[in-house]
Amino acid sequence: MSSAHGPARLRGVLAPVVTPFDADRAPDAVRLARHCRWLVDQEVGLAVFGTNSEANSMSVAEKIALLDALVDAGLPPARMMPGTGCCAFTDSVELTRHAMRLGCAGVLMLPPFYYKGVSDEGLFRSYAEVIERVGDERLRIYLYHIPPVSQVPIGLSLIERLLDSYPGTIAGIKDSSGDWNNTRAMLERFQPRGFDVFAGSEIFLLATLRGGGAGCITATGNVNPGPIAKLAASWKGSDADARQADLDRVRAAFQNFPMIPALKRAIAQYSRDPGWATVRPPLVELTDAQAALLKQALDAAGHSMPGLNRAP
Amino acid sequence: MSSAHGPARLRGVLAPVVTPFDADRAPDAVRLARHCRWLVDQEVGLAVFGTNSEANSMSVAEKIALLDALVDAGLPPARMMPGTGCCAFTDSVELTRHAMRLGCAGVLMLPPFYYKGVSDEGLFRSYAEVIERVGDERLRIYLYHIPPVSQVPIGLSLIERLLDSYPGTIAGIKDSSGDWNNTRAMLERFQPRGFDVFAGSEIFLLATLRGGGAGCITATGNVNPGPIAKLAASWKGSDADARQADLDRVRAAFQNFPMIPALKRAIAQYSRDPGWATVRPPLVELTDAQAALLKQALDAAGHSMPGLNRAP
Repeated sequence: MSSAHGPARLRGVLAPVVTPFDADRAPDAVRLARHCRWLVDQEVGLAVFGTNSEANSMSVAEKIALLDALVDAGLPPARMMPGTGCCAFTDSVELTRHAMRLGCAGVLMLPPFYYKGVSDEGLFRSYAEVIERVGDERLRIYLYHIPPVSQVPIGLSLIERLLDSYPGTIAGIKDSSGDWNNTRAMLERFQPRGFDVFAGSEIFLLATLRGGGAGCITATGNVNPGPIAKLAASWKGSDADARQADLDRVRAAFQNFPMIPALKRAIAQYSRDPGWATVRPPLVELTDAQAALLKQALDAAGHSMPGLNRAP
Repeated sequence: MSSAHGPARLRGVLAPVVTPFDADRAPDAVRLARHCRWLVDQEVGLAVFGTNSEANSMSVAEKIALLDALVDAGLPPARMMPGTGCCAFTDSVELTRHAMRLGCAGVLMLPPFYYKGVSDEGLFRSYAEVIERVGDERLRIYLYHIPPVSQVPIGLSLIERLLDSYPGTIAGIKDSSGDWNNTRAMLERFQPRGFDVFAGSEIFLLATLRGGGAGCITATGNVNPGPIAKLAASWKGSDADARQADLDRVRAAFQNFPMIPALKRAIAQYSRDPGWATVRPPLVELTDAQAALLKQALDAAGHSMPGLNRAP
């Protein structure tokens, strides 16, 4: 799995792992490790500290403690792509260095997202500052393009400049634009240079793999890991389109609910562990009425979470 | 200046103090203290860690160290309104507690700004979480409404709910919407309840004061403090409209340049201290050509910065 230059490249399916909080809304490392184990056992990698992880609702110290706890619990850093991009490069450097020390296979890096309308020159300098300060040849950065949330897009010309300046280190992207034309353009222009394109939703998984991409990093990887990973592993099979349609049906069951509270409530239901539903503000938990509708929609889509209803 | 419940309420003009960085882009507490002293001597209060301070480009630890350094340098906490609103409530609580320990008169609090389209319920919980955890009757929170940057607005109904739940603690707002109709609505609805409305630019200073508001918190307070503070102190005078027009002319000189790099370059020029121009990414310093145009525009507006060109 690893070479002289660190772990093998990440491929296939990763989940931006949702973060459980206890009754005081503190991160719950025990619940998180259990969920990560369940995901890894189904061949889903760990993009902890993504948007769906409420990563930016946690302090740097809270994230470092969680990452340490996961590694201490025996979860494999070679399957980890923690989010380390913060508004302050000092924070991004600290988190990225820590991920490198633990041997994480890569990091998923948001651009600084407070200022809007910033220049490509400024975004280039943001990434360069972190890369130069971390100063580690094993570093593999996956850019995180999620304009609906960050409001700070990572355009094609910025990617090109970063790839030219830091080949190898700039390892790929998660494209959460929801715009297939953008994903396709990146597949055509950059995947041939070894820049691994991950779709931001399993809706585009089959299309991404057929386009030469690396896989997907998807919210619903948290609740439907097995079937999504199975498509990634067997996408050349004759039943791939049918499998993609099955995935799309489960995904659609979430569409009328705020994603993060819905994912957590679904896990709470299946694991019989109501505390899983807790979110940090500014997010708000689903109401019981919403949760009942969600369950109905998931049942209708034939969704299940085998192995999750173990005692906590 | 102070009562049993802490320092007197902040009024008049405050500057979101620009943060100097050294050659390694580390915060420079010595330069910052000198600039703050220059502002306070001209009756301008210290809204350190605002948008123009590049606050979100610094870690919590960097901000705490700077605040300690300012107080150690003898600058008055009674004139301070540090920005303490972060995406993670744990960070907001830590910064706010520290500001309270130092005796700051108030804090300026952004809503969590990563997630977009969040509910008022979620934003209410965000502020409530910080207020309850800080648990200090002396706490005075100024809400920070800056939708062009944060993309997370603080609407009138949210303000009403916060005021109803935490009267006294919810002390006012900085309105950086740039929308006078919004400022006027807040002046009419909430200023009579002791909720102090600060305009986000001196362009609205006279109108805000005539509407019963508290003053303004303005970027150009960093470079034109004396004249802005003078209008706030003598706004009932017959020359108030002429003074406002003078302020507007200086403000307009900045309009063709990115504000933060332009403020810092102007300070660098007047103080003969080129290092002042340094910004953190994703911002980018002005080019020399831009700086020359800025100087021309400021000269034409009759702008000066008396007392700033002391040896560093």
